[in-house]
Amino acid sequence: MNAEIITVGDELLIGQTIDTNSAWLGMQLNQAGIWMSRRTAVGDQAGAISAALDEAFARVDLVLMTGGLGPTKDDITKKTLCDYYQCGYRLDEEVLNHLTHLFSKRGRKLLDINKIQAELPEACSTLMNYMGTAPGMWFDRAGKVLVSMPGVPYEMKHLVETSVLPRLKSRFTLPAIVHRTLTVINIPESLLSKELEPLEQNLPEHIKLAYLPHLNTIRLRLTATGAATASLERSLEPSWEDLLRACSPYLLAASDTTAVAHCAAMLQQKATTLSLAESCTGGNIAHLFTLIPGISSVLLGGVVAYANSLKSGLLDVPEQLIHAHGAVSGPVVQAMAEAIRAKTGSDYAIATSGIAGPGGGSDEKPVGTVWIAVASAEETRVKQWHFYGTREHIIERATNTACHQLLLLLQAQA
Amino acid sequence: MNAEIITVGDELLIGQTIDTNSAWLGMQLNQAGIWMSRRTAVGDQAGAISAALDEAFARVDLVLMTGGLGPTKDDITKKTLCDYYQCGYRLDEEVLNHLTHLFSKRGRKLLDINKIQAELPEACSTLMNYMGTAPGMWFDRAGKVLVSMPGVPYEMKHLVETSVLPRLKSRFTLPAIVHRTLTVINIPESLLSKELEPLEQNLPEHIKLAYLPHLNTIRLRLTATGAATASLERSLEPSWEDLLRACSPYLLAASDTTAVAHCAAMLQQKATTLSLAESCTGGNIAHLFTLIPGISSVLLGGVVAYANSLKSGLLDVPEQLIHAHGAVSGPVVQAMAEAIRAKTGSDYAIATSGIAGPGGGSDEKPVGTVWIAVASAEETRVKQWHFYGTREHIIERATNTACHQLLLLLQAQA
Repeated sequence: MNAEIITVGDELLIGQTIDTNSAWLGMQLNQAGIWMSRRTAVGDQAGAISAALDEAFARVDLVLMTGGLGPTKDDITKKTLCDYYQCGYRLDEEVLNHLTHLFSKRGRKLLDINKIQAELPEACSTLMNYMGTAPGMWFDRAGKVLVSMPGVPYEMKHLVETSVLPRLKSRFTLPAIVHRTLTVINIPESLLSKELEPLEQNLPEHIKLAYLPHLNTIRLRLTATGAATASLERSLEPSWEDLLRACSPYLLAASDTTAVAHCAAMLQQKATTLSLAESCTGGNIAHLFTLIPGISSVLLGGVVAYANSLKSGLLDVPEQLIHAHGAVSGPVVQAMAEAIRAKTGSDYAIATSGIAGPGGGSDEKPVGTVWIAVASAEETRVKQWHFYGTREHIIERATNTACHQLLLLLQAQA
Repeated sequence: MNAEIITVGDELLIGQTIDTNSAWLGMQLNQAGIWMSRRTAVGDQAGAISAALDEAFARVDLVLMTGGLGPTKDDITKKTLCDYYQCGYRLDEEVLNHLTHLFSKRGRKLLDINKIQAELPEACSTLMNYMGTAPGMWFDRAGKVLVSMPGVPYEMKHLVETSVLPRLKSRFTLPAIVHRTLTVINIPESLLSKELEPLEQNLPEHIKLAYLPHLNTIRLRLTATGAATASLERSLEPSWEDLLRACSPYLLAASDTTAVAHCAAMLQQKATTLSLAESCTGGNIAHLFTLIPGISSVLLGGVVAYANSLKSGLLDVPEQLIHAHGAVSGPVVQAMAEAIRAKTGSDYAIATSGIAGPGGGSDEKPVGTVWIAVASAEETRVKQWHFYGTREHIIERATNTACHQLLLLLQAQA
């Protein structure tokens, strides 16, 4: 089944806001067996919105719309939909109660401009938005469904997960779909696809393999489509085992995850602690770990030793070691990892030192050269890598690889 | 003048890729006086691409298209456009030379699949893409212009800046447009817009004010539209001076920038150095600074003192100070800033300590409470802040505010 997305808002067209909602929505629907066949962004103008709706409904039976539901006068989606479905307004008591409660909790008075948010087109049923003030709306007329949702990402996501997906699954006859995803690292897509060619050709007709590359990681997703979930799960098992086996040399995780998230989860599971000594990654590893709520049980912290003076000053790396081998070298990155582990008393440590570019490269150590060390009480592993891409890409690739190296060390010590 | 964007690629529809190109393109065109009235994403199917083109050309005279120009068989934009314009192919010698040169530089052999990228529809003129392998194409027929560009962001951006914008300016009669942008921080949009209401009402007819909010910063853009740039510049001056004056209590920079970028530029200009002691921001300040090429002349590095043990262990913050006041307190953040400055020998230092949530808050110190200290040889300034939003938002708001506090200290010592 096909569907389309319409996003509403001048801020999308003039580039003030990057549309992350559509990508997330597309992925959710795709996983539920709905193919997003087109998406359209229009400005806050009634004519543009209803024209886009007419065009979309001429092609598909399901349209998802986000944005334009705020309380201010430039948000006109609700009024436009009321006109489009030629109906009046009704006061939704449940929404009004929610708004009253929300505003009293925030210590603010409910203004008339806010009360109006509880007035909804008669033609729609309400999708309660407990994360914000603008409810979602579900229109179902002449076999065509329109779902209108607020553009605030976490409100939209909450609505989709709690209301929209369940309702879509009961309203439309969707195929049963089962996904299994694993994540590999540091293997080029072209090489991997060549290796997996026989496996892919032997897949049963109802099972597909998708490549979802991002920097130096690729998520590989097996999707089985059919009538019943239980039998799909069973039929997927042999292909999944084959895929796991074929990917084992590059496997980051047998799940859909990121290097940092998986590393954090494994450390949490073992109740062990981590410290960091970052040079070329410049705090990015620490930053990504600390975005995870509750990470303080695992991450003690560390040092961003960007200047060489800090490598010796804060980490006691001997100056003659830096002088003899250069800051971007195995001995220095090893000393950094061991020093931060000793200083913080953490179980494990990661250290990075490299040349992120665009300047600073040489014939011997070109831009993209990165040394990574991972250390435990028993062992320090040190390895040189060569990454490519922009400065930001090199930092991200080094971050992913450092986490993977630590995962391998954790596995070896399991 | 209106224009539309068409983006091509299944990866956009299933959410594998977030479309950042459209936002950037929309902003560039908007600043050149072209209003992006709609954008459409379609999959890699010839029928969908040509239908979207027909529909767009029924509404506007200019369509910008990105994506689908790779060498593999799922990229079909070029063939679709060749069919759409009913023409054959020509070999572009300049493109072939560029490809030969590019591949020899990378030490790779030019394959047939790559040579085909030098074959272009006869109906288009070539937009040389020196950043990659797929050239851009410029079609101009019956008063309607189509610009097709690769979807790789830095290739697309380079093409737009070097070829597309100059050609659009000579092909279409665009208004002269002059922009001036300043950036403010930690003032809610609703309050600011109330304060600026009289100024906005007094603006000459040809000058508009736009609010571009992002977290706790807002870029304010004055745009003058008319016939000649020089007179626009002159006519903009009084409004710009008024705006600067009205915004002075919240001013981050009299330009279009970010807190980190402006802070880095000011430090570079003064040839001074910075170190960091981050707790709740968890390395984000270091990370954002180190994304800037050449930042090593300014940023020495610092400590991510996430655990209290590291605040005392790495930064020598007395344990009884943490015990007496809590880690999230003025005395502790002051000690952190002064310690990292002393240990690294930097001219300036920033320290942060707070509760990013979602857990860890209390009545006395709710989630969002952040203490920030900025230190120089002469002075340490310490202040408590209350930020709201998700964990990520609180970290970003604290990062911006910390940079702003340092800017104020730099200004006071200028």
